[in-house]
Amino acid sequence: MTVAPRPVGPASVLDALRAALPIARILTDPTALDGYTRDEAEWAPFARPVAVVLPESVDEVAAAVRACARTGTPVVPRGAGTGLSGGANSVQGGVVLSLERMTAIVDINRAERYVVAQAGVINDTLRSAVAEHGLWYPPDPASYRISTIGGNAATNAGGICCVKYGVTRDYVLGLTVVLADGDIVRLGRTTAKGVVGYDLTALLVGSEGTLGVIVEVTVKLLPLGGREERAIVGSFPSLRSAGDAVAAITAAGLGPSALEIIDRLCLRAVDEWQQLGLPHEVDTMLLAKVDIPGSMGEAAAARMATLMVEAGAVTVERSIDSESVDRLFLARRLTYPALQRLGPVLTEDICVPRSAVPEMLARIQATAADNNIEIGNIAHAGDGNLHPLIIAPEGDGAARARAKVALDRIVDDCLALGGTVTGEHGVGLLKRPGARQELGSRVLALHQAIKDVLDPQGILNPGKGF
Amino acid sequence: MTVAPRPVGPASVLDALRAALPIARILTDPTALDGYTRDEAEWAPFARPVAVVLPESVDEVAAAVRACARTGTPVVPRGAGTGLSGGANSVQGGVVLSLERMTAIVDINRAERYVVAQAGVINDTLRSAVAEHGLWYPPDPASYRISTIGGNAATNAGGICCVKYGVTRDYVLGLTVVLADGDIVRLGRTTAKGVVGYDLTALLVGSEGTLGVIVEVTVKLLPLGGREERAIVGSFPSLRSAGDAVAAITAAGLGPSALEIIDRLCLRAVDEWQQLGLPHEVDTMLLAKVDIPGSMGEAAAARMATLMVEAGAVTVERSIDSESVDRLFLARRLTYPALQRLGPVLTEDICVPRSAVPEMLARIQATAADNNIEIGNIAHAGDGNLHPLIIAPEGDGAARARAKVALDRIVDDCLALGGTVTGEHGVGLLKRPGARQELGSRVLALHQAIKDVLDPQGILNPGKGF
Repeated sequence: MTVAPRPVGPASVLDALRAALPIARILTDPTALDGYTRDEAEWAPFARPVAVVLPESVDEVAAAVRACARTGTPVVPRGAGTGLSGGANSVQGGVVLSLERMTAIVDINRAERYVVAQAGVINDTLRSAVAEHGLWYPPDPASYRISTIGGNAATNAGGICCVKYGVTRDYVLGLTVVLADGDIVRLGRTTAKGVVGYDLTALLVGSEGTLGVIVEVTVKLLPLGGREERAIVGSFPSLRSAGDAVAAITAAGLGPSALEIIDRLCLRAVDEWQQLGLPHEVDTMLLAKVDIPGSMGEAAAARMATLMVEAGAVTVERSIDSESVDRLFLARRLTYPALQRLGPVLTEDICVPRSAVPEMLARIQATAADNNIEIGNIAHAGDGNLHPLIIAPEGDGAARARAKVALDRIVDDCLALGGTVTGEHGVGLLKRPGARQELGSRVLALHQAIKDVLDPQGILNPGKGF
Repeated sequence: MTVAPRPVGPASVLDALRAALPIARILTDPTALDGYTRDEAEWAPFARPVAVVLPESVDEVAAAVRACARTGTPVVPRGAGTGLSGGANSVQGGVVLSLERMTAIVDINRAERYVVAQAGVINDTLRSAVAEHGLWYPPDPASYRISTIGGNAATNAGGICCVKYGVTRDYVLGLTVVLADGDIVRLGRTTAKGVVGYDLTALLVGSEGTLGVIVEVTVKLLPLGGREERAIVGSFPSLRSAGDAVAAITAAGLGPSALEIIDRLCLRAVDEWQQLGLPHEVDTMLLAKVDIPGSMGEAAAARMATLMVEAGAVTVERSIDSESVDRLFLARRLTYPALQRLGPVLTEDICVPRSAVPEMLARIQATAADNNIEIGNIAHAGDGNLHPLIIAPEGDGAARARAKVALDRIVDDCLALGGTVTGEHGVGLLKRPGARQELGSRVLALHQAIKDVLDPQGILNPGKGF
């Protein structure tokens, strides 16, 4: 499809935006713009946008997109900017469309168990709001206290309880989307089932703002009650032995509701920062939860403890005391900020077959040693989703170069073991080479053709996603 | 996209097929063709195909599609032909591509809990094969003993345990698809998580053969054990009171693994046919299952029984004896063939908000009475997915006209209550008007544009789906 030439450039898009929106919605001050240039991905390129738009309604989003469409201006949709792949990084000559002011919870339907929320609602705010109605929204990315439901949907965010309860896509029933020409469409349904038409909702979830701007999300909910949490925490002498325990627990089909690895580097970083009293003598901790109620839950927890011991755990602690469970999982959640104190952290997001977790962890350690670089490890181990955290000290060009070599080797190892380059963070900018390799030319061509249909001018988050 | 004129017609496609495939794969005998003209949908149009192709490998499917693409011939993919919307009905001048000989179970991966199966594997065969490895494939359409996993994926089939465990889409990790030009692509993944690229797997699931031919399906599995089934069966004086019980059980968030309604007409039809000893004095039965283990499962079952009594149940029977549970659910599964003995049955598939189930059931009864037509009711009531079974005696034109009036009124009532015209059977031919009404013009245009991208000649199951 060809598009007729039209006036483009910073001046024309600013004029168009000012004509379409209240002036208070448009930021152009350079200092203000600097807060919107990038997300949390290290090493991904970004540029200062022409403007940041902060719409307060669906109609204002549509008006902003129309203004950009008329002037052929790139639009970079943005939630909270907590992404780790550069998906929200601004591009030259573009407009950042921040959904942060779209914070209305539109409808909590207790009988049908769904909630409709605007894109800018924080995951944890949504979670608390539905809990008051006895309902539960499971997907819990590590960023759940700061990331938005719109960003979660746009990136198909994962989290800790995914191992049992699935990822964001599994909960999204419907979306309101502003298309590339500013038209507003509603996709999906609110009924429990429905098979009318193509699943455009699923197509948009995880599309990272390249096919449309998600402005409203309808997610299904589970009843809040009916679960009984038990934690089983093992201390292991090595990353690999903890990986063996993960493989054994997974193969046994015990249904953990969390199965997380934290290695020595991460444990120490958290403890030095927050003094949580974590054990310093262990190399790796494996944090498991079971939420099956009653005697079957108890039996599953006991079996997990046994499998940990058989895999080489030095100690295994079991707890049904929610406070100590929360303390241990708090350490997991604090790992990323704790490591960031040590220097810029490049967070990998590979996902390998669950049975390949021990082998992949061993390869990561070898890669760190061979390249003389520090790599911490946290992992949604029960899903095979590993987050090697590559630390590259500020200003040390040689270390950074070694880190890049290590990164490439980790990705190669992951693919060799049948894995994927991104389990939950999204492709953004950082994972494009790996994504293109994984998809292959024919499937990539299908992606481009679908992109061209939904965004013929190519203005929606250009250069991201595939 | 424009396509250059090319030789078309029955002769050329037969030549092309014979050049591409072993002769034993191609049926042209009129008697043989007659078995492939239609699925189980009443009233949907169909035509005798030019040929039926029975490929025995992915490459043979690709060869068949290429032959059709080169001659511009419509291709109607077909699993077991058990559909209820006309999705597999043959079209004038077309070729039916039956996947029935693609019956290999390619890989059962116990550690990763998935199975790869060719499209023609029967759902129940898949289920049995994975059970031997301690694994469970939940989606259980009523046709599970005769329908194929490929057809289940192409229509996003539902079933009885969906109310707790979700539909086919929720289990499909990946697909091998033959595209409209005969190219073979693999979509999706085998890892537990993965967010590379657009979710083309989800786009293809439920697309009813209009975007590609599904030749191989990878579905995730659950552990077979860890559940304890309890049945709770209530007998109600009216359809509406049973509906009230459904709404109460759903609102209470008790997590039933089945919640099915069978009305008087269906109960009698099954019992007269099979002498199951079902109670004749009741009007409506509500069949619930709970599979939460232990005391919490027991508590949930007890609470369901109480809610049934409060909604007006005359008797409530509880059982953990798997034989009597199976007998009661057998009646549910036999309803459709039992009713077919009374005359052609048009199976509706509306899905309304769960809380609207009592109102919708009352409206269906009023519609039956007002139009002097028999309408039986079975329902996946816990999902709001109702199957009014409209009986139109053979050769009675007036009754058939009244049945059509009733059908339209049911669809209108469903939409007025916020429902969708197809919960699990698919759009096929029968639901196209309702689907177009639901989707609206802009979203329909997106459908057509995506269809044009994947099938520029429009040869894949033309006229179906939207």
